[in-house]
Amino acid sequence: MLLITGMGIFDMNSKEILLAHGSGGKASCQLIDKYLLPGLDNAFIRQMDDSVRLPVDGGTILFTTDSYVVDPPFFPGGDIGMLAVNGTVNDLSVCGGKPLYLSLSLILEEGFPLEHFEAVIKSVSESAKEAGVKVVTGDTKVVGRGSVDKIFINTAGIGSLNPEVCFSPGRISPGDAVILSGTIGDHGIAVMLEREGLDMKSDIISDTAPLNKMVSKMMSEADSVRFMRDPTRGGVATTLNEISSRAGLGILVREESVPVNPGVAAASEILGLDPLYIANEGKLIAIVDRNRSDKILDIIREDRYGREAAIIGHVTRDFPGKVVLKTKTGGRRMLEMLTGDQLPRIC
Amino acid sequence: MLLITGMGIFDMNSKEILLAHGSGGKASCQLIDKYLLPGLDNAFIRQMDDSVRLPVDGGTILFTTDSYVVDPPFFPGGDIGMLAVNGTVNDLSVCGGKPLYLSLSLILEEGFPLEHFEAVIKSVSESAKEAGVKVVTGDTKVVGRGSVDKIFINTAGIGSLNPEVCFSPGRISPGDAVILSGTIGDHGIAVMLEREGLDMKSDIISDTAPLNKMVSKMMSEADSVRFMRDPTRGGVATTLNEISSRAGLGILVREESVPVNPGVAAASEILGLDPLYIANEGKLIAIVDRNRSDKILDIIREDRYGREAAIIGHVTRDFPGKVVLKTKTGGRRMLEMLTGDQLPRIC
Repeated sequence: MLLITGMGIFDMNSKEILLAHGSGGKASCQLIDKYLLPGLDNAFIRQMDDSVRLPVDGGTILFTTDSYVVDPPFFPGGDIGMLAVNGTVNDLSVCGGKPLYLSLSLILEEGFPLEHFEAVIKSVSESAKEAGVKVVTGDTKVVGRGSVDKIFINTAGIGSLNPEVCFSPGRISPGDAVILSGTIGDHGIAVMLEREGLDMKSDIISDTAPLNKMVSKMMSEADSVRFMRDPTRGGVATTLNEISSRAGLGILVREESVPVNPGVAAASEILGLDPLYIANEGKLIAIVDRNRSDKILDIIREDRYGREAAIIGHVTRDFPGKVVLKTKTGGRRMLEMLTGDQLPRIC
Repeated sequence: MLLITGMGIFDMNSKEILLAHGSGGKASCQLIDKYLLPGLDNAFIRQMDDSVRLPVDGGTILFTTDSYVVDPPFFPGGDIGMLAVNGTVNDLSVCGGKPLYLSLSLILEEGFPLEHFEAVIKSVSESAKEAGVKVVTGDTKVVGRGSVDKIFINTAGIGSLNPEVCFSPGRISPGDAVILSGTIGDHGIAVMLEREGLDMKSDIISDTAPLNKMVSKMMSEADSVRFMRDPTRGGVATTLNEISSRAGLGILVREESVPVNPGVAAASEILGLDPLYIANEGKLIAIVDRNRSDKILDIIREDRYGREAAIIGHVTRDFPGKVVLKTKTGGRRMLEMLTGDQLPRIC
């Protein structure tokens, strides 16, 4: 069966791995549900969060991992080294954790210039310094020319958990406000334009950034924060779908409230892409108590990576498990989860 | 400068990443010392062990990571899924830890058969079950055809640490016995023969296995165990060089005591390879108090993966930081660290 929607196409009965299986959207979910969870099932992996809570040595830690395969490895505003640190820092942060330690595992293509290698490691080092995390262990593999595209990086991260913080989709209630910490689509468009060598790149740069300091400031309002995610692969639309589905509630998004840089909006229109489905690497979505939403918005806006934060919508019981966009012209349309893969190798 | 030794060749002044940089031998050390440690320096990464000890939430955990890029992903005796679990389990085990949790990050090539994917996940699941560890978090990326060779896997592992265990090279003393837990070269030769499609593969199979149960039995003699490592990339010779260098003592190895399967010995001779430099994936080297070495050897031999364990040599002050092989014919030769890369993509 071919699943065709506005958000892509993929053959659900394919006997091969498809690019869509790595999109973070519907095909990824199918792969995880059908092939990964049955064999690996346990209470931890079923948490299905950006990080997992683990009991260790009398306490609890957060643990997460991500591989980075971005093409090209250097792009306006960042590189694969920054992504690999910030992405994992953010996966720990949005779960309410304090990122402490990272592993760094490099897979390099024979012939990769040492100068580029040095630049990536410098980025890793500077990003770790900014986020206040330590790279504590690592691994380096080299494979022959053509067996990997330049450089892939995996980071795994360990964080401590504030015992008073327990973000979960189960805490989300109708009326809660949906905060987005800034403009969307910057990362995906910056990488896409660089990859395709398109001239219009102008001033669009990736938003890759560590969000742990912003989250740490939000902890003064931890009781009013229900749940957080960072809208990476699949973009804001896919992340909101995951949240609404797990909360069993609907989310209404006001298009006019969603911050988009004019350059990103223009490039998206020319490329036929919807910024709501484009990956971000320095943004978070927080579902918060509406009575504290202005206060929390102020806290986020005080952070250097949250200056353009906005309340973009609210939670409702009207359409459980669905996300609806109220368009600028006053219409309404369903925002589905990403189905195919608009932009492979974006992170 | 071209560094040429019996154990390979590599251009120390290359401006590009070479296969040798991933060998686990001299070029890997150069890459780590020159490019990685200066930028990432901290007390943890300087431990340079198979796993790092980290303070968290009032306790201490062990943390490690490895990427697996073996070619081909399926080989006699195992596959990349088994390797990815057992390798990380063993890195935690040889540091005296009890492996608890693994992350699993997959990088897949578009077009990789789902049937093969399923087989790899089944292996991961079964290996995790055998080792008693849980896969608790993961990530899946898909890249276009030609951007990765079939499937690469990263696992990171977390283990608990027995507070009474403190293996370190600093505890090694002259006279200590060197125990090897079984035959060498099986994994490397099995993969090599499969990769090259050579007919002589006969009964040679990879030794990939989890060693945590063996190590857990050895804990009754923890006081007498000085240090352990698993001789993977670079083989027994490279691992012994690391140990002797870190202990500041020499190691004398008796060639006749080193267990080698006849098939592996024959294949190595034909291929011009030295089993002492070939990767193992289910073996450990333990440096132990000579007064307890027979008892520890008995414990290892009782384990299903240690039946052919042997005392292969001893520590000496005679040639600090060097490893010397006493050959079967009574001669002596230096066993240097691996320089080039005899067998890329072996794990």
